[in-house]
Amino acid sequence: MGTFIRGVRPVEASSSTFDLRFDNRRIASVSDAEPQPGDTEVDARGKLAIAGFVNAHTHLAMVLFRGLADDVALQTWLEDYVWPIEQQLQPEDVYWCTMLAIAEGIRSGTTTFIDMYFHNDQVARAVEESGVRALLGYGMIASSLQKNGTSELAKTEAFIRQWHGQADGRIQVSVSPHAVYTCCEDVIRAGVEMAHKYGTTLHTHVAETRSEVEDWKAQTGTSPVKYLLDLEAFSVPTLAAHCVHVDTDDIAILADHPVIVAHCPKSNAKLGSGIAPVPQMQQAGVHVALGTDGAASNNRLDMLEEMRAAWLLQRAKHENSALLSSQLVVSMAVYPARHLLGLPREGLEKGAPADLVLFDTDRIHTTPSHDPSAMLAYAANSSDVTDVYVDGKALLQNGELRTIDEERVKSEVRRLLHRIKNR
Amino acid sequence: MGTFIRGVRPVEASSSTFDLRFDNRRIASVSDAEPQPGDTEVDARGKLAIAGFVNAHTHLAMVLFRGLADDVALQTWLEDYVWPIEQQLQPEDVYWCTMLAIAEGIRSGTTTFIDMYFHNDQVARAVEESGVRALLGYGMIASSLQKNGTSELAKTEAFIRQWHGQADGRIQVSVSPHAVYTCCEDVIRAGVEMAHKYGTTLHTHVAETRSEVEDWKAQTGTSPVKYLLDLEAFSVPTLAAHCVHVDTDDIAILADHPVIVAHCPKSNAKLGSGIAPVPQMQQAGVHVALGTDGAASNNRLDMLEEMRAAWLLQRAKHENSALLSSQLVVSMAVYPARHLLGLPREGLEKGAPADLVLFDTDRIHTTPSHDPSAMLAYAANSSDVTDVYVDGKALLQNGELRTIDEERVKSEVRRLLHRIKNR
Repeated sequence: MGTFIRGVRPVEASSSTFDLRFDNRRIASVSDAEPQPGDTEVDARGKLAIAGFVNAHTHLAMVLFRGLADDVALQTWLEDYVWPIEQQLQPEDVYWCTMLAIAEGIRSGTTTFIDMYFHNDQVARAVEESGVRALLGYGMIASSLQKNGTSELAKTEAFIRQWHGQADGRIQVSVSPHAVYTCCEDVIRAGVEMAHKYGTTLHTHVAETRSEVEDWKAQTGTSPVKYLLDLEAFSVPTLAAHCVHVDTDDIAILADHPVIVAHCPKSNAKLGSGIAPVPQMQQAGVHVALGTDGAASNNRLDMLEEMRAAWLLQRAKHENSALLSSQLVVSMAVYPARHLLGLPREGLEKGAPADLVLFDTDRIHTTPSHDPSAMLAYAANSSDVTDVYVDGKALLQNGELRTIDEERVKSEVRRLLHRIKNR
Repeated sequence: MGTFIRGVRPVEASSSTFDLRFDNRRIASVSDAEPQPGDTEVDARGKLAIAGFVNAHTHLAMVLFRGLADDVALQTWLEDYVWPIEQQLQPEDVYWCTMLAIAEGIRSGTTTFIDMYFHNDQVARAVEESGVRALLGYGMIASSLQKNGTSELAKTEAFIRQWHGQADGRIQVSVSPHAVYTCCEDVIRAGVEMAHKYGTTLHTHVAETRSEVEDWKAQTGTSPVKYLLDLEAFSVPTLAAHCVHVDTDDIAILADHPVIVAHCPKSNAKLGSGIAPVPQMQQAGVHVALGTDGAASNNRLDMLEEMRAAWLLQRAKHENSALLSSQLVVSMAVYPARHLLGLPREGLEKGAPADLVLFDTDRIHTTPSHDPSAMLAYAANSSDVTDVYVDGKALLQNGELRTIDEERVKSEVRRLLHRIKNR
């Protein structure tokens, strides 16, 4: 029992179309595909196809804070708004909020999420049920091993044992110390050892704000990147979120090690963190992926918006109209972080997991079309996403979510918010 | 015969809803509205309402170039791609391209367009038929009165005589010298006189790129803004597009005169022009509106994207998370340029022309909702726009265009592009 998809147009090829066949969970044939008896046939003629966006850094459940006090200073926002609500979050709340976030992601073409949060069993449950792919982490915060470092590490290890490789391998777990300024040296070292032990990855926030880096340098005499290097963090594949304030030496380190930078342009802009040196990092050979960060600092989980922001911010900052071509921004949204989840670096090829996103291109706002990658990067809307497959299973079909009860999810999130606000 | 609209939630009011009644072309009652016999009743409960976005600077027909060679240097783009096609544009082509652009605008909540192009009779025809509101100008380019300045001015005057105030006043005409560096002093002076004579406005490009301003200063010893002041351009209401590279003296001049700056953040970013000093201008009292510029340099005509870009670019540039609140960016997209078209500065009030845009807010990506202006500015999609009224007439109803044959328009634009490319 497979799925035969007729006439897709991959974004990388400017004009050719091909047929694709999934045999259960894998792409069985590309281009020379023939429908087999019993196949579900999908007419995708005229649709643009990608292997699915990988949202390389997010905190899914924080969708609850979308639009809450967006225009206040960071500390006020945290202390007066976010933390009081987060303290009241029940595990079940995290499940519903994560489901809402995943629904938004699927609807905008994201097949894979790299998340860091807490109540992770609930996050994993939402991933398992919704059918998406995810690299999940428990965000450890610990000032010493004695205080709570040991328990934070134990939570991480329990989460790895229970969930790493589950849901047919759709769920992977990374060791996720929140940041160098919130985790002591011992916890980070032990986390790296744990990543080695379980053959998994590291995910942490790096050099997000100017003051964070300046304070860190004043305290330790070294940059967050150099500090992580000294702790041998980069001896395992590492997802370094943000990297806004990195210098030439930092960039050389990131390029020389198995690090993927998760560039979150909208979050960095909204929170006033700045504009990461993306062209400089790419020129030096650093692999830069795109992420939304949490909806609290975005306010969307839409990789199309992220591509557009990445593109516009660099061109504006450097006053250079040739930076970040549409091909480059599309590739940043799809490829660099795939291998952290065990996916092949390429997308729509024989043997790869059957992840696929289709875009309707017969829209007013994508007419006329001179170039498919420009259409996707600079013109498409999330409402153009018609079909999403992960592991051969349809999660969105003709614009309808197949694994998530959208009305229920919206209503549960409104209900829990009401409960918390009226407590 | 009127229209009774039940239960709208204006973006400015955080929680209250009201009923609205149009009596023919005007808002007859607000809040205390009662349906009259024969009224069309519209259930808008739960929908967010604005008076309609005003796209303060665009070249509608340039939608033809959407996605054409986006990633090359400006001069290559113009000389090798845009100009060869523009030279072949027939008047009828401009009509179809303008219709396509208007359709995209309506679909994303724009009721009013401020345009500068050529073959303006066709632009006006498209505005008249589609039912939107527009301030149109013929972009004059003339190195001297003798060479072609007189004929450019004559074209402008003929256009004013034929179209200014037509379509029940929905069409207004402005005198539109393209820029100080493409129009000689005599043509600008004569254009200002013409604006006085016909009681209309001026629309011109000002200080868009760094090199333009540096070259102009080197040539004339003065800035474009100061130069326009010396020509008494600001003695009539003026729409100054871009103003990216303006200094403190320029800003003081803009603040002291009846000038509206049309800030086009996406175009300025895409073309590498830079980031306009919006907070500085606003602090000095300059009225800053938002515009998309042409789709060639955007690649959308979507004021929601423009709001988001304006917001993100300033916060990123200044590393300040409190700049450009959602209330402020929404107001920039709706209000500052309204009076240039004879509209009252306020929107949804008794006696105002019946322009109204409704947004469905029951979407995954706008859930939960803590604040209506944050929802609109930071989370909404153009696909959330369900209904658009201009002058009391429905142009979009339940997501369907009522005055534009969308399939025909797409097909005509594809056909003419094919004709030009295969010439």
